Amino acid sequence: MTAKEMETAAPEWLQSVRWNGTRLDLLDQRLLPEEIVYLPLDTVQDVWEAIRELKVRGAPAIGISAAYGVYLGIADAPGGAAELLAEVRRHADYLATSRPTAVNLFWALDRMKASAEQLAAEGAEPGRFKSALLAEAQRIQAEDEETNRLIGEHALALFQDGMGVLTHCNAGGLATARYGTALAPMYLAQERGMKLKVFADETRPVLQGARLTAFELQQAGVDVTLICDNMAGYVMSKGWVQAVIVGTDRVAANGDVANKIGTYSVAVLAKAHGIPFYVACPLSTIDLETPSGADIPIEERHEDEITQGFGKRTAPKGIKVFNPAFDVTPSEYVTAIITEKGAVRAPYEENLRKLFE
Amino acid sequence: MTAKEMETAAPEWLQSVRWNGTRLDLLDQRLLPEEIVYLPLDTVQDVWEAIRELKVRGAPAIGISAAYGVYLGIADAPGGAAELLAEVRRHADYLATSRPTAVNLFWALDRMKASAEQLAAEGAEPGRFKSALLAEAQRIQAEDEETNRLIGEHALALFQDGMGVLTHCNAGGLATARYGTALAPMYLAQERGMKLKVFADETRPVLQGARLTAFELQQAGVDVTLICDNMAGYVMSKGWVQAVIVGTDRVAANGDVANKIGTYSVAVLAKAHGIPFYVACPLSTIDLETPSGADIPIEERHEDEITQGFGKRTAPKGIKVFNPAFDVTPSEYVTAIITEKGAVRAPYEENLRKLFE
Repeated sequence: MTAKEMETAAPEWLQSVRWNGTRLDLLDQRLLPEEIVYLPLDTVQDVWEAIRELKVRGAPAIGISAAYGVYLGIADAPGGAAELLAEVRRHADYLATSRPTAVNLFWALDRMKASAEQLAAEGAEPGRFKSALLAEAQRIQAEDEETNRLIGEHALALFQDGMGVLTHCNAGGLATARYGTALAPMYLAQERGMKLKVFADETRPVLQGARLTAFELQQAGVDVTLICDNMAGYVMSKGWVQAVIVGTDRVAANGDVANKIGTYSVAVLAKAHGIPFYVACPLSTIDLETPSGADIPIEERHEDEITQGFGKRTAPKGIKVFNPAFDVTPSEYVTAIITEKGAVRAPYEENLRKLFE
Repeated sequence: MTAKEMETAAPEWLQSVRWNGTRLDLLDQRLLPEEIVYLPLDTVQDVWEAIRELKVRGAPAIGISAAYGVYLGIADAPGGAAELLAEVRRHADYLATSRPTAVNLFWALDRMKASAEQLAAEGAEPGRFKSALLAEAQRIQAEDEETNRLIGEHALALFQDGMGVLTHCNAGGLATARYGTALAPMYLAQERGMKLKVFADETRPVLQGARLTAFELQQAGVDVTLICDNMAGYVMSKGWVQAVIVGTDRVAANGDVANKIGTYSVAVLAKAHGIPFYVACPLSTIDLETPSGADIPIEERHEDEITQGFGKRTAPKGIKVFNPAFDVTPSEYVTAIITEKGAVRAPYEENLRKLFE
């Protein structure tokens, strides 16, 4: 990518991944919020590098990028259905090596391979084979957008015009095809002229709230105020917050929720102030195989994120640091879990299971 | 100061202000934690600049520095008691312009002036006049150290060996003659071989916890772990914290406590986890003229502290920011207020008043 010309463009909305007809335009998230730069990706190699170098983040957005990457790999390939299927497999295997632990990536690549296998079995002629694969990538993207829109609808039904809403980290459009999960109701409210006053925790140490949430909501014209994480309690005490909504990395069968570090503190503060605490996520994030939050491993990250996270040392050398990436919020603090199938409330054990029946 | 040679030295302990026999050596707090540099201050002008340029911070440390500054102003002055008194007044008035809102500064300068007036009234000969004024500055420093030591003793009586203690911001030795207020029990425990495991909140936006508290406790050999503010709840939930102790800028007559932003969140989290929440301060910080926390004005500071506090922009341009410097913790969250006269508990209205009877 380095030798390529980069292009800056004002998008219709701040779309992390967009297909422009012949290539993939990818918003370079490493440059946010300072610069809005769309990278033109023409080849499967371009897509591999963009995922590898974290220019795209967020599980759904990575999966969508990879799906388009598979199509880019065969767009100009010669041969019939059998040759194209072999090419799809080769490119999918290659793309799978870009971020070896990204579950959504494998899921999207598997879906592209399955589609290609189906087309090969049907003996599809090359033109139809290729356009059907492009359509599959577009379907993956459209389905993600639709899922998030439904989450947003169900969340918005719990909000009222003029409400103050606090969020932590970034569960936004930048991580997905569009809308995000926790931020989906804010986009829908904006589309409908309903006013929400959003408070975005900056979310130390990596500042996803400051760099991404504040940015994407500002771009969309949403009324957003950036605060430091330690100001959430004070803002609640002033009566400015009527709901908290966050995303999640994994929901356990009992309704315990793993999310970015600091989510638990926000949940406790919300409960102390009588404010509902909502968690927004697609069904795919609910893991009935994980009995409770205690079974979710909490990754600890490098101390540099805290001691010199901004290119400048802000803590003494040799200081001991505790830097968990996530925490677990017990289900007793969760007012509702909002999915594309609606809002689920306690008893979670029972009601989450029903979602999958 | 700029033209002067700066001197780096390993102090006996990390003393913010120390008299070396002929001059004042001042720890340049702007360079912490990267460098430990003591600035040699020989003249009243040097002291004025050091206070003005925030090389020294913390109300007690500023007051002590100014007191020594008055003495430096007359150390080599000619004339008798009347001339020296006039010089003291002139230097005190000058030093008072260094930080126009620092109450402790005026208090220390008034005390130096009162001492000079007494000496002039007694017709003290120049040698005694000067040495008595130096002694007064040293007494101001010694009294501050003694006050803090007493606060530390009363606090330590509430702690047990092996306990986890969480603190927010910096109410430490760097702000005072020695020991600090909230950190005093940690220093005393260390002197006595009692082990405390301290968690220091980094304290966004200005990071006094990371830059100062973590640093001074590390220097003293205390077991200290730095965390981001949003990790406090998670650390409490793991059972690692048995007490929270913080300093305060002002205690109202009803026991409400104003302190660095984020203190209120910590207090709510402590209560939710059944952890005692202590506030440490000298009697001079208790203001019976302020009926409740609602009467304490909360300063809002510049948005740059949040959007580019690390020398690098970390939030989008034009983003709305809320940046209160302090918050108020209602007395219902305060387990005890620990002063040099002992620990005061609810009902605060009554028990705080008794301290002054």
